[in-house]
Amino acid sequence: MVQEIISAIRSVVGIERVALHEPSFHGNEWDYVKECLDTTFVSSVGKFVDRFERNLAEYTGAAYAVAVVNGTAALHIALKLSGVQSGDEVLVPALTFVATANAVAHCGAMPHFVDSEYRTLGIDPLKLREYLEATTEQCDGFCINRVTQKVIRALVPMHTFGHPSDLDGLMAIAHDFNLVLVEDAAESLGSYYHGQHTGTFGLLGTLSFNGNKTITTGGGGAIVTNDPELAKRAKHLTTTAKLPHAWEYRHDEIAYNYRMPNINAALGCAQLEQLPAFLEAKRMLFDVYCKAFANINGVHLMSEQEGCRSNYWLQTLMLDEDLSCLRDPILQATNDNGIMTRPAWVLMNELIPYQDCPAMDLSVAKSFCCRMINIPSSPKFAV
Amino acid sequence: MVQEIISAIRSVVGIERVALHEPSFHGNEWDYVKECLDTTFVSSVGKFVDRFERNLAEYTGAAYAVAVVNGTAALHIALKLSGVQSGDEVLVPALTFVATANAVAHCGAMPHFVDSEYRTLGIDPLKLREYLEATTEQCDGFCINRVTQKVIRALVPMHTFGHPSDLDGLMAIAHDFNLVLVEDAAESLGSYYHGQHTGTFGLLGTLSFNGNKTITTGGGGAIVTNDPELAKRAKHLTTTAKLPHAWEYRHDEIAYNYRMPNINAALGCAQLEQLPAFLEAKRMLFDVYCKAFANINGVHLMSEQEGCRSNYWLQTLMLDEDLSCLRDPILQATNDNGIMTRPAWVLMNELIPYQDCPAMDLSVAKSFCCRMINIPSSPKFAV
Repeated sequence: MVQEIISAIRSVVGIERVALHEPSFHGNEWDYVKECLDTTFVSSVGKFVDRFERNLAEYTGAAYAVAVVNGTAALHIALKLSGVQSGDEVLVPALTFVATANAVAHCGAMPHFVDSEYRTLGIDPLKLREYLEATTEQCDGFCINRVTQKVIRALVPMHTFGHPSDLDGLMAIAHDFNLVLVEDAAESLGSYYHGQHTGTFGLLGTLSFNGNKTITTGGGGAIVTNDPELAKRAKHLTTTAKLPHAWEYRHDEIAYNYRMPNINAALGCAQLEQLPAFLEAKRMLFDVYCKAFANINGVHLMSEQEGCRSNYWLQTLMLDEDLSCLRDPILQATNDNGIMTRPAWVLMNELIPYQDCPAMDLSVAKSFCCRMINIPSSPKFAV
Repeated sequence: MVQEIISAIRSVVGIERVALHEPSFHGNEWDYVKECLDTTFVSSVGKFVDRFERNLAEYTGAAYAVAVVNGTAALHIALKLSGVQSGDEVLVPALTFVATANAVAHCGAMPHFVDSEYRTLGIDPLKLREYLEATTEQCDGFCINRVTQKVIRALVPMHTFGHPSDLDGLMAIAHDFNLVLVEDAAESLGSYYHGQHTGTFGLLGTLSFNGNKTITTGGGGAIVTNDPELAKRAKHLTTTAKLPHAWEYRHDEIAYNYRMPNINAALGCAQLEQLPAFLEAKRMLFDVYCKAFANINGVHLMSEQEGCRSNYWLQTLMLDEDLSCLRDPILQATNDNGIMTRPAWVLMNELIPYQDCPAMDLSVAKSFCCRMINIPSSPKFAV
């Protein structure tokens, strides 16, 4: 079977050495970056940051977007703005990239890990509701963890590999349990839930433009929100809280240097112009892979749910339950063969720094996370 | 006098609108950035980050350099690595950019503000020694603030506008009072104290490559150190503490996404090649300004101290004490005239977020900070 999988991937990606996800720069990247160098506006001053923010807002349908230095910074500030304080707990999936948990820790708060569902690869709202009913109580409008006596302040769904979580279910939980909904949409630019862009359902949402994402700015992220006051606060907190003045350097709160440089935003503007084409190619790639894997028993590709549109950021093979023992041999053989593949992340509650954090039963995430393999997903393979 | 000052600046910078400090991209910026786009290595993977780190180490004479996303991030991690913990105090000059204080706050520690000396614009070691003798005690190898009973963990000199602080005096204090010396060399790339590069005297030092600095990467910074273990830890903590593995995502501590993207490092490599030429031009500019201001009474340019070599990052006018009332009229008139100038920063202890922090008598910094004006300092004006 390992050989069958290699052959199936090779039939799609060709015989060369292949990366998991490569950016593609065939639009105006060159022109925009050159403009930055020619005008010397590469840093905190320059038109591309404003333009990138405007274009992101237009694309996602959020009223505002604030460009920052990366997705971790975006989530850190989004959590702060949603009221997360030192000593709080924040519900995050155990199945996520470490940045989700780190952003909580950077607020001085503690991640509280929740289980995922197989269907969406995101937080399971039914299981979470039962858990919160059994373990929390509402007190003066706050959700209190009965075990730790701490405030559970926020709920942070992450849209795994671009597949939208069950936002209807999660919004209802946020409402019923007095939790602020903050979406970690780092992986889901171009993904929609019932026609609305992911990241725009919560009070705040965050995006990432790291080099391996659907579009890239080298390193970068953004906070999106429909709230004008929060947008203003996000800009203020990410730019050292400097008060506007022709020359005076006065800052009115402890803040961060999280601004995105203009040269990175220039790249982002050019990339965003090509996003529809990237997304189309990535959908085609999914179809091509489906055909290539159609005759291999025991493995299938994760597909978007009804009512959702996935950006298919990372194509994901799911092995049947009885074949999980093949995950590592497949990872080894593909990587040895020059095909970059990777498993899902080690679950957060299994990492040393987070092993003592509160967590619900995580059996579902545990059972399928050791059966997933991401395979090369660059849009160019669809051509 | 206001008009005289404008004329003197205009005689140097010409009749156009002028910025305070503009980057100059006349080297290999274009080639290196193009290489990033052509190879698609714009982000966390790519050769320019390693090369920039190697070149920075060579240039500064530090054994190691770790490139990060900006100067604030560099100082945050340098402080963490020097053992600064939540609840500690850290000695920083009141006269500094807010990033110095913010980095302390980001560690959960509290800045403790100390006075500067007129000669270097940096921390005054004599006054600080007297203050520490009177207000602290040594206990089990720790320096304890007798008033707050907190540990004063570190001493952070900042080399103001590129002029080296009195490092001999400050190193002696660090030694005698059990303080870790961490240099904020954000403004002093290319500045030397007794022939040794600033930033390399402390356990760790930090640099900045923001758009207004002597060289720029758009946004960027670096940690320099001679300690191999600290260098390794700096890299680990700034890259999410991911353990090396062909595919597994396992992280062994709560860490940060502070890595410098490859495209920004590409810019840095090209800029660093031109640093000697920039520095030469900036020294020439100092001479040109000195001549232009020679016949104006009541104002002079800050010059490097004996035994020091300043990078002359920002040229600094100092008004005589009785003329401090002219600072704001000069700032207003020059900015109205299209000449970007600025005062020193509002002292940290006067900012709302830091007004309740411990502070020694700050009368010296206070007296000269309201007499300083930075004037246009781009190297191109020397030509």
